Formats: sequence, structure tokens, C-alpha cells
Amino acid sequence: MNLSTLLFGRRLANREHEDKKIGWIAAVPAMGLDGLGSSSYGPEAALTVLIPLGPLGLGYIGPVIGCIVGLLAILYFSYRQTLAAYPTNGGAYVVAKENLGEYPSLLAAAALMIDYVLNVAVGVSAGVGALVSAIPDLHPYILPLCLGIVLLVTLANLRGTGEAGWLFALPTYVFVICFLGAIGYGLVGIGLGERPAPIVEPPPLGPTAEGATLWLLMHAFASGCTAMTGVEAVSNGMGSFRQPVMRNAYLTLTIIVVILGLLLGGIAILATAFEIGAMDQTKEGYQSVLSQLLAAVAGHGAFYYIAMTSLLSVLCLSANTSFVGFPRLCQMVAADGYLPKAFAQPGRRLVFTAGILFLSGVAGLLLLVFGGITDNLIPLFAIGAFLTFTISQAGMTVHWRRRSTHHRAKLVMNGLGAVSTAAALIIILVAKFAEGAWITLMAVPMAILVLKSVKSYYASLQRELRKPGPITIEDIEPPTVLVVTETWNRLSERAIKFALTISPDVVAVHFIRLGGPDREEGENGLREEWRVDVEEPIAARGLKPPRLMLIPAPYRQLHEPLLRLIEKLDADSPERRVAVLIPETVKDRWWQKLLHMNRAGRLRTKLVRLGGPRLTVATVPWRLYREEQTA
Amino acid sequence: MNLSTLLFGRRLANREHEDKKIGWIAAVPAMGLDGLGSSSYGPEAALTVLIPLGPLGLGYIGPVIGCIVGLLAILYFSYRQTLAAYPTNGGAYVVAKENLGEYPSLLAAAALMIDYVLNVAVGVSAGVGALVSAIPDLHPYILPLCLGIVLLVTLANLRGTGEAGWLFALPTYVFVICFLGAIGYGLVGIGLGERPAPIVEPPPLGPTAEGATLWLLMHAFASGCTAMTGVEAVSNGMGSFRQPVMRNAYLTLTIIVVILGLLLGGIAILATAFEIGAMDQTKEGYQSVLSQLLAAVAGHGAFYYIAMTSLLSVLCLSANTSFVGFPRLCQMVAADGYLPKAFAQPGRRLVFTAGILFLSGVAGLLLLVFGGITDNLIPLFAIGAFLTFTISQAGMTVHWRRRSTHHRAKLVMNGLGAVSTAAALIIILVAKFAEGAWITLMAVPMAILVLKSVKSYYASLQRELRKPGPITIEDIEPPTVLVVTETWNRLSERAIKFALTISPDVVAVHFIRLGGPDREEGENGLREEWRVDVEEPIAARGLKPPRLMLIPAPYRQLHEPLLRLIEKLDADSPERRVAVLIPETVKDRWWQKLLHMNRAGRLRTKLVRLGGPRLTVATVPWRLYREEQTA
Repeated sequence: MNLSTLLFGRRLANREHEDKKIGWIAAVPAMGLDGLGSSSYGPEAALTVLIPLGPLGLGYIGPVIGCIVGLLAILYFSYRQTLAAYPTNGGAYVVAKENLGEYPSLLAAAALMIDYVLNVAVGVSAGVGALVSAIPDLHPYILPLCLGIVLLVTLANLRGTGEAGWLFALPTYVFVICFLGAIGYGLVGIGLGERPAPIVEPPPLGPTAEGATLWLLMHAFASGCTAMTGVEAVSNGMGSFRQPVMRNAYLTLTIIVVILGLLLGGIAILATAFEIGAMDQTKEGYQSVLSQLLAAVAGHGAFYYIAMTSLLSVLCLSANTSFVGFPRLCQMVAADGYLPKAFAQPGRRLVFTAGILFLSGVAGLLLLVFGGITDNLIPLFAIGAFLTFTISQAGMTVHWRRRSTHHRAKLVMNGLGAVSTAAALIIILVAKFAEGAWITLMAVPMAILVLKSVKSYYASLQRELRKPGPITIEDIEPPTVLVVTETWNRLSERAIKFALTISPDVVAVHFIRLGGPDREEGENGLREEWRVDVEEPIAARGLKPPRLMLIPAPYRQLHEPLLRLIEKLDADSPERRVAVLIPETVKDRWWQKLLHMNRAGRLRTKLVRLGGPRLTVATVPWRLYREEQTA
Repeated sequence: MNLSTLLFGRRLANREHEDKKIGWIAAVPAMGLDGLGSSSYGPEAALTVLIPLGPLGLGYIGPVIGCIVGLLAILYFSYRQTLAAYPTNGGAYVVAKENLGEYPSLLAAAALMIDYVLNVAVGVSAGVGALVSAIPDLHPYILPLCLGIVLLVTLANLRGTGEAGWLFALPTYVFVICFLGAIGYGLVGIGLGERPAPIVEPPPLGPTAEGATLWLLMHAFASGCTAMTGVEAVSNGMGSFRQPVMRNAYLTLTIIVVILGLLLGGIAILATAFEIGAMDQTKEGYQSVLSQLLAAVAGHGAFYYIAMTSLLSVLCLSANTSFVGFPRLCQMVAADGYLPKAFAQPGRRLVFTAGILFLSGVAGLLLLVFGGITDNLIPLFAIGAFLTFTISQAGMTVHWRRRSTHHRAKLVMNGLGAVSTAAALIIILVAKFAEGAWITLMAVPMAILVLKSVKSYYASLQRELRKPGPITIEDIEPPTVLVVTETWNRLSERAIKFALTISPDVVAVHFIRLGGPDREEGENGLREEWRVDVEEPIAARGLKPPRLMLIPAPYRQLHEPLLRLIEKLDADSPERRVAVLIPETVKDRWWQKLLHMNRAGRLRTKLVRLGGPRLTVATVPWRLYREEQTA
């Protein structure tokens, strides 16, 4: 039981993979939290844009969020079709690869990756924003809290969130019940009275600084669209559903979208009724829109704290959705050769370790740069998501067109999805360009460049290593074996004995003048010992005894004189292979490494790097302390 | 021309060692700077203790420094005898080892090492103190300046200070001329007038807070004794003198001691005459004693700045003396097996790299802990030096007693040295115990413990590896060769070809289910390819074709199934050796390493660590991009 077992659990076998798959009850928290969580920061972001309108802005909340809910409905029906058409994996990368070609698929991959990274940053900082809203004393610790949560989520995902799924599901369902309950209660109040009295009066709205312009409303819509960033998740995660896959997927998608729609609509109506606006997040005393809304409906009682706690958990878990999706996406892209192979390799817990670490590293860096404040990150967000939506829907349109004409209705649905998400994408791009959208816009082509470079490296690697046709055997002469010998001991004995089994042509190489100018050498002693202890007994067995060669190392480096010797051997018999045997003591403890000079390891590395094509380097290991026990 | 050549210069051959030896003109700066530099902080330390006496303290400067100069004279004559008796190396470690035995020699080594480390810290922080004294604006940057100088001296010593000797000699001789000149000029003034008028009036002395006690005077003496810490240097550095060695050594020692004596005496007289006292170094506006003295004699003109600049250089160079001595001492101790072997190995520039790095690391840490303020470090200092003096002189006494009675005079001289330094040591210990001397006193036995542990590790290592008697050959059956094969390509072709040259019994091992649960395997394709491209052509040559074994790696680790296979082979034929050939691509660039998973390297490490005694692991390298050019 070592530290990594304690932290990450035991190593899982491939066959345990099936046990880790999930049904809809676990999938709603795992995949939907991105979407559900965004219900808190999407409307908030839209209202933040409306701050300068003051009380005048209240009239625009409804229409702006109405547009977003409409778009959500279109996306829902579009994605149902995608799930049906791609039941194993309907992510935008796959859909684009199959229907639109290489570059659109890379565009989708790059956009999705950026989107996933931003989702972690936005989700976590929104979670911390909610926490600070509830406990204002924590305001100075926003950044450390954000980074701590990223670390925690990373560790949980390296372990594999499968087991912990129910643990995560609890706060999710608490969140849904609390907020749908509060919103429903508030709506009933509105239905009964004319203008309901808030239990805790929200902070007054600021003065009206300017009038509503189309530009401002577009801006609010663009900001609010971040509420929709999680809708893609189900199509990306098809591989993790258990049987019946389609039923689980449909149910998951439906539940997520319906809850999200109810939350968005309810928030819009209640914010208008209670005259709730956004507050400046960078100032002390900040309260999120949901916090104000909850306090207005239910006061600052136990219910408020339960609901806010569940919101915080949900927001942190919304980052978790990225940790499920990003490594999976990277795995597919890496399997196609566009990312380092390590991204395609399942680690100890059958999760894609490289993707998880990369995701948390980049997201952590983003949080650091932006100081852990969501608003700074939102302009970067949404573009990736809507680019992905558009590519995915466009791909689906091509997909249906290639099929028979029976699918005209589906073609129209996905076409509508493509056009509307493309329109939203353009609005977001225009509205947010100067605020930071240009960064995402620059990052996407750069990411594509990296993906293409990786692909071309692997292609050149394969070209270099490819062996067309059968093996060509010129000779099978045994190699010249050089045994590196420091002194005559059990280690060199083992190396010589191994050398004798693979070739009759063995040379022991001893380096002199290695210890510097002042060191005395026992050359004659070693020669005599060699003659008596090695050469004579071997000759007595009728074998060719290994010669002892003393070669000077005037620069106190082993590899140079050895490579020169090998060069000379190559010149004498160019067909002959050379094997260098390096005896090495194996150290189990860190302090042992301090006490040895690791000459063997360094020599090995140098020879492998600089030796010719006919050279093989072998390590003859001696496991310190453990050999005696096994013998 | 790479970075390390630029920083450290080209690699030197052993034979270039002789060219790096020095005569007395270069040796005075290299070895004497420790002593000469300490003339600035020794008296300062004594005066610091006298601060509470106020003007009353002036009467005690003379007697305290007089005692120190007297002790210096005794040491001088004692050390002359040591040099004559040990013309190759008269350091305390060697003298103690030959005359007193193991533990005294380790005590001397530990004390000397601690002394050398403290000398770097004290020298550099005194140098920076002098700099701050001249340019008070630099006061907030004491620590960064200290660390910067340590780094610089480290780099210079890694390069080898030999060449730069003259560069260092210049400020040394400027320092000697300036300060001896200023002191001489001041003394002449005192000889002419009654109480000479200072050109720049020194800051007034503080009020008399307490009367002089024996305790306080002992304390002042103990602090002042740091002025003598460099006297040992010449005996430690005998190995670096060129012919005639004895003449160079005598001259060097004499010059250093005479100049040091003149400086100490002169400072004592002038400080008394000009009523100069020490100031609190931690306060702004601090001025060192030498700075006040120089300003009093010569004013704040160009001469002042030249002299203070040379003082700064000398103090920094006094750290350099440690960098000459410490690595040499460690080399001797390591050659005897009490320190890791790396300390005994001359590096690229024939200097002992490990010792230099260790010294600068520990000194840097000390400076960091103490905030770069000398006064904090002085209680730790001097104990090591005086312990060393005492052991060395005691060793010499034994040395003479073992000889004939002709050496009675020498015996008495070294005996006097031993007794007086022992007395001083006791005074220092008592006076400084609570202030930090206990730290040195704890560090010495801990250092000895480390030295003994290292020795016993090497002894157990040697016992384990020792091979008494001739080689024992049971069999020379060729080994079973396992070739790790990912796919059939030029890399595996090379490995198979090498395997065929060393054994007829070759098995290609291909791991399946390595890529995780979702990866598809091309098992049948590989089998077919193997049959056509490998087995049939080899069988056609009349050789035994290598079998292809597919072994599952359900935990996605290579070493476990391979070790299990080897265990099975061992059980089938326990006498047979096993060689595992691992083909490996060699990457020259860092980004290539990101794109490969280094499975070969990790497998090699695991097999070497965990394999049995009959296992050898070989790397068959393929140098990416370079193979085509050589072929």
C-alpha cells in the first residue's frame, strides 16, 4: 500500500472498464452539470451587461433570455437527431470528420478543447463567486480557492469519478429541487399578488447611465449564451453510457435541457419582478443574481444556505464535466495522430491521465492570469461552444443530405440548428471581439497548427521506420562484446559470464586516468588479478579468454574513448556488430543515488545517443542488498 | 560552441593539471585573502562587543587585539613547522589522520568543513557590509547582493580560478597598499601630534551603558579571533604550489601573516586614537570600522573609494579561499571513503565540481537564513577554525614525539601552539555558547556521523560485491533472447537481427490489450506479416526462426507480464540466462520526448530494478533522423 494507491486507488484491468459505465441517473450529474451550472452564470453575465441601464434594464431581461431559451429548444431537437445518427460517439469532432473532412474536424476539436478549458475556469470561478456571495469574509481568497478546487477535481478525476458518481449526484439533485422549488414558489407568488414583496430586499439597482441600444442588447444576448455551453456534453460522452445506450442518452439530454430551460425562464421572470440586477464582482459586498433572487423569495434562512451550498457544489462539478469530456476528446484526436500518443493511453484507473493533467494545468494557468474572476473569462468563452455547435449541425446537415430523401425533416431541423447557432456565433463574435474574443479566435488556428504538426511528425516517424518486405539477413556473426570493467568483482564476473554466452569475442575494457591527475592507478595489480582470476580459468575450460584492455580517459569521460575504440573495431571489420555490456548497481533508495556517481547510466545514455547503427548497449544489473537474499 | 563551453570553458585533460599550479605571487591572493579579509571583520566584531562600554571601551581595544596578534605569532611559527613536516599536504585532516587516528581526523575534517562554509557566508556578507557602508542606498538589497556574489564566485570556481588569478591579485595588492598606506600615514600623524584631528569626524560613540567585565573582554577577544581564520589555508593548499614548493609556501605564509599582523595592530592603535567604535549593522546609516578609520585618516576623496572598492573585492575573494580549500578537503575525505565518491572526481575543468556546488549551496542557505548580516554568523564562526588549529598542533606534537629527541624545540613550539589555541577555543566556546556557538557544536558531531555512515555504506557495498578467487563458469549456453516488438518495422528488424547473432533461441514478444479497453488490435495482421517477413526468410536460411508471442497486458504495463514470462522461462530451465532486447528510438530534441511515451525507457528501468540475477536488459537504439544519413 504505497502513496499512489492511497491517492488514486489500485490499478484497474481493462476488463473492469464495462463496470464503470453509467445510466441516466448518474449521467445527469456527470454530463449535465456543465449545462445546469451555467444557468447561474449565463443570466448573471447578461444582467452584468445591462447594469448601465439601471432600472430600465429590467424590461429587457425577458426578451434577451427568451431568445436564449428559444435557441436552446432548437439545439435540443437538433442534438436528439445527432444522438440517433451517431450512437457510439456523436461529438462534433467525429461528426465533422465523417461529413466535412479533416480541417473542419480539427476546427471542431480545437474549438471544443478551448471550450472545455474555459468551462473549467468559468465553472470554478463562478462556484467560488457563489461561495464568496454567501460568506463575504472569503473575498480576499478567490484565487487560492479557485486553484484548490481545480486541484481537488483533478485528483478526483485521476482516481476516476465513476465510483464517486453518487456522491456528486446528491448535491446536483438538491440544487435542482431547491432552485426549481424556489422559482416555482416565487412564480406562484407572482401569480397570486400583483408585485410580490421580497423577504430580503435586493440591493437597489444603479442609476440609468445610458439608454438601451441594439448593440447593448446583442451584447447581453452574447454574454447570456454562455448558459448553453453544456448542451454538447451528452453527444461527446456516448461511450460512457451503459445499455440501453439510446434510452439513457435521450433521457439524460431531455432532463438536462428541460431543467436548464425552466431555470433560465424562471430566473428571467423573477429577476424582472423583484427588480434584481447584477453587481460588480470585483467589489466587496458583491452578491450573485441567484443569491439575491433566493434571498428575495426565501430569505436568509437554512434553505438559503442549503441551496447556495448545492449551487457551489454544482458549479465546481460543472468543471468536472470538462474533465469527463476533454480527455475523451483528446484520446480520439490522439488516436488519429494529431496529439501525442500519451493522450490516447488509459492510465492506472482507465482514465486518460495525460488529458486530465493537461486540462487542469491550462485551466489553472488561466485562473492565475485572470485572477479567478469569471467576468474576465466570459468574453473568451461561448465562442468555442457555438463554433462547435455550428460545425456539428453543419456536419449533420451533410450527413442527412448524403442519405435518402426520407430524411428531409431531419435535414431541415439540423439546418435550422446550424443557421441559428451560426447567427448566434456571429453576434457573439462581433459583440465580444474587443473584450477578448480575439484571443479565442487566435488560439483556434494556433491549436490547429499544433495538431497538424504533431500529425506530420508521426507521419515522418512512420516513413523513417517503415520496413517494406521481409527481413534482410547478411550475416549472423556473433558480435564483439566490450565489457566495461571497473575492478574485478562479482558485478564484473556476472557481466563477463553473460558476455561468454553470447560471443566468443569478449574484450574487457578498463578505463585508466579517470580519477584525475592525482589519482594513483593499480594497473599492474588489475592485470595480474585478471590473468589469474579470469584468463587462466577460462582458457582451462578450452574457451577463448577475454582480453583486458586498459584505455586512457584523459578527459575523465568514459564515452569518448569507448566510442573511439568502437570506431576502430568498425574500421577493422565493418560487418561486425558491437555490444557494450555495462554492469550497473541498482539502487532502491534515494540516498543510495547520492552515494554513487551513476557512471553506468551516463555512459549508457551517451552510447545510445552517439553510437553507430551496429551498436547495442546492454545493462547487466546487480540489485544491491537483494542479490544475496535471492541467491 | 555550446552554452556550457561558453560558461565554463572547454574540458581540460589530466595532463593540463601541472599548468594550473601557482607561485607565491598568485598564492597570496588565492590563499591569503581569507586571512587578509578577516582583518576587516575581526576587529569590527571585537569592537561590536565593546559598544556598551561607550568611550570607556577605547582603552580595551589595544589589549584585546594585542592578545590576538600574539596568538597569531605563535600560530605562524607553529605552521611553518607543519609545512616543513608535511610538504605535500599539511592540512589538519591529514596531520590528524597520520598522528591521532580516525576520529580526530574526522573531527578536524568536520570542523574545517563547517569553517569553510562559514567563511563564505561571513566573507561575502562582510563584503556587502563594506559596500553598503560606502553606498547606503544599497542597504535594502543586502541579501540579494550576498547571494549574487556567491553565485558569481561559484561560477568562477566551476570554470577554475587559475586563469583569473591575476585579475583577483590586482584588487588584493591595491587593498594591501591602500590600507597599509593609510594606517602608516595615520601612525606617522600620531607620532607627530598629540591627538590628530580626523579629516572626517567618526560618528560619536554611544553612552557608557555598563562597565568593563572580564566576561565582556573575553567576549571581545572571542569575537576578534575570527580575524585568524585564514591562517590554516596555506597548509591545506600545498598541492597547488609550483616548484620550488617549500619556498613558495614559506613566502606565502609569511607575507600573509605579516600583513595581517600589521593591519590588526594598526587598526587597534588608530581606532583608539580617533575614538572609533563599531556601529549597529542592522540600522540604516551603518558604517564599518575600516570605513570610519579610512575617512578619519584620508577623508571621503578618491582614495577612500579606491580603498573601499578594494576592500569589497578582497572580502568577496576571501570567500574564494574557501572555494579553493573546501573542494580539496572533500576530495581527500571522499578518497578515504567518508564522502560520496563524486566529491573525489575532478570535473570538466579539473576542479572538484561536487564540492564547489555543495559549498555554495550550504553557504547560500546560511545567508538566506541569517538575512545576510555578518554579526549573526560570527558566533558560529571561529570555533571550527580554532578546533582545527588545536587538532593540527596536537597532531604535530605527537608527530615530533614519535621522531628522535632532536626535535624537542619543534615539539615545544607546536605544543605551545596547541595549548594556546586550545585556550582560545575554550574562551570562544564559553563566551559565544548561547549566541549560536552551540549550533556549530551540534553540527560537528552530526557531520562526523554522516562521514562515518558514508564510510560504512561503502564498506558494505564492497563486501557485497567482493569476488574472492577466480571466475566460476557453470555453463555458456546462449541465453533466451526476448525481443520486445511493437510492430514490424526497421527498428524491430534491427533488434531481431542482433538477437540472431547472439542466440539461436529468439522469441519476439508483442503486447496486446496495451492501449486500453477500446483499442482494436491487428493481431492477425501482425501474425501473418511475421510469418511472411520474418519466419519464412529466416527458416529459408536454415536458421531457427524467432517465434512471435502475443502476451496480454491487461493492466497496460509492460513489465509485469514480461517478468511473469521470464519467471516461467526460469522455472523451465533454471540455468538459462535471459536477455531482453528493447528497441528504442533516440530523441535529440526536447519536443520529441513529448511526442513519445518512452515505454522503452520505462520498461528498461523496471526490468533492471525487478528482474532476477540471470536477466540482462539491452537497448537496441535507432537514432531518429540520423540513421538515414549514416546509412
